[in-house]
Amino acid sequence: MKIVVIGAGAMGSIYGGHLSINNEVYMVDTNQTVVDKINSDGLKIDEDGVTNVYHPKAVTTTEGIGNVDLVILFVKAIFSRSALEGNKNLIGPNTRVLTLQNGAGHEDLLKEFVPVEHVVIGTTEDNGAVLDFGHIRRGGVGRTNVGLLTEDTDGFLPTLKESFDSCGFQVKIHENIQQLIWDKLFTNVSLSAVTGILQVDMGYIASNEYAWKMTVKLIHEAVETAKALGLTCDEETITEKVRKTSEDSPNGRTSIRVDLEAGRRTEVDTISGAVVRAAARCNVAVPTHEFVVNMVHAMEGRPR
Amino acid sequence: MKIVVIGAGAMGSIYGGHLSINNEVYMVDTNQTVVDKINSDGLKIDEDGVTNVYHPKAVTTTEGIGNVDLVILFVKAIFSRSALEGNKNLIGPNTRVLTLQNGAGHEDLLKEFVPVEHVVIGTTEDNGAVLDFGHIRRGGVGRTNVGLLTEDTDGFLPTLKESFDSCGFQVKIHENIQQLIWDKLFTNVSLSAVTGILQVDMGYIASNEYAWKMTVKLIHEAVETAKALGLTCDEETITEKVRKTSEDSPNGRTSIRVDLEAGRRTEVDTISGAVVRAAARCNVAVPTHEFVVNMVHAMEGRPR
Repeated sequence: MKIVVIGAGAMGSIYGGHLSINNEVYMVDTNQTVVDKINSDGLKIDEDGVTNVYHPKAVTTTEGIGNVDLVILFVKAIFSRSALEGNKNLIGPNTRVLTLQNGAGHEDLLKEFVPVEHVVIGTTEDNGAVLDFGHIRRGGVGRTNVGLLTEDTDGFLPTLKESFDSCGFQVKIHENIQQLIWDKLFTNVSLSAVTGILQVDMGYIASNEYAWKMTVKLIHEAVETAKALGLTCDEETITEKVRKTSEDSPNGRTSIRVDLEAGRRTEVDTISGAVVRAAARCNVAVPTHEFVVNMVHAMEGRPR
Repeated sequence: MKIVVIGAGAMGSIYGGHLSINNEVYMVDTNQTVVDKINSDGLKIDEDGVTNVYHPKAVTTTEGIGNVDLVILFVKAIFSRSALEGNKNLIGPNTRVLTLQNGAGHEDLLKEFVPVEHVVIGTTEDNGAVLDFGHIRRGGVGRTNVGLLTEDTDGFLPTLKESFDSCGFQVKIHENIQQLIWDKLFTNVSLSAVTGILQVDMGYIASNEYAWKMTVKLIHEAVETAKALGLTCDEETITEKVRKTSEDSPNGRTSIRVDLEAGRRTEVDTISGAVVRAAARCNVAVPTHEFVVNMVHAMEGRPR
């Protein structure tokens, strides 16, 4: 396949690097230093105790590349729109766009750029970290879960799976990918949101009764929304999972918390904001998530 | 009148000092140094450009004082219960208890100690600051608004007004004191609550669109509650007043914000918490105030 990965951060590099084994891969990033480094030295990935070097082509602009089979969006969600607008030229009548970004509801944006049947959404259990320009550490390797918003009439997902799996991924195709995305979302919209606005470590959530009450309320509203969307979920099980996550990683720092601390914009609009938008569509009241979204944005704007 | 003022902070001292002009006044405080200082040097109040000295009697315990005509509660609301429990001996069949404390709903506690017709509630527009042990600055002087929860069948309020006014206060008796208390509460449960949880100056509320959305939502829920209580209020007027308060004091710091910053317990339970309790009684949904109360308590408990 001819693939463009937009965003050469940790995750973009893991996918771009590995997929280049058996595909024609272009990695796009706005950072000229990263692009130059990948083109001169290759993309280094520390994995399984060794440093492997991959050779995707890196570019700052996709001009001239023409239509591709697959665009993978790996920028921070707040940059998704500008990333797609700046690379419209890649999208032809048969181009699929895949998002494995954190949060939910990314399909709303993707549908503005490709027909709904060409939108692929999912989650990844892989993780990694940037070590240096063009140098990544691949941490845990897990499943890449993908699915469509419509029926897979032309068998694209099996093709994607075959290609990705041959490059070191473990793709699982889901009939109901939203279920999986929301299963992951519950933790983000409760634990991550609350640690963000309180600016505390993950362990505080289960250990402080008031932080826990905030979390429980957020889970409840999100579960009501998921049910209205037709998803299956058991509030008690989800609540216990969140509690366990807090207890198991007492010193863990969520991305919303870290972003706010660093004075950066967060991804709250595709985390808590995804619940708010979904709830609005199915007439569920989620006042607490609305408050959290406003609060995180208000915190982003504070004078430093 | 025989009066006991519980709490020798700035407000307690202003009332205790002035009321001692024409009344038998005892000031109770747990701080031995303050008590000793008042007894040895008198209570100094800087006002109108001079330092006046008043001579209330200061005590750390009210044992032996016997029943009094009036107990005025001027401790922080979080200490109200223990203050009343520790001074039950003052309360006889004719004792009134007056609260001019910030927030609302103090009557719920007072009614546990005296019959409802002996509860006097209100607000004060006076303000001041502690300069040193037994030394206070009286800032602005305004109205002392008082009212009862029942009809004033035995004319206690006119007696109180006469006595207070003769000592330099400007008492106004209200038929519907809850209206006045809630008029003041709207600003506290919106502006103060939001500056507290965001840890920002007052000006940020009107200047940041997300902080403003949080504030507007809190005002809305509080107004719905007030209406359900039978009070008269115009949401637009209240909202404009809050905006103006933010704009007029851009560098103002609210007590919730200051308390949280200093790692102290706040009075949120008698501010936002008063809305939550009142709303529960009249079946109004106030999810945002509930979230704020939990959030402030969660912030109070954070490791420092």
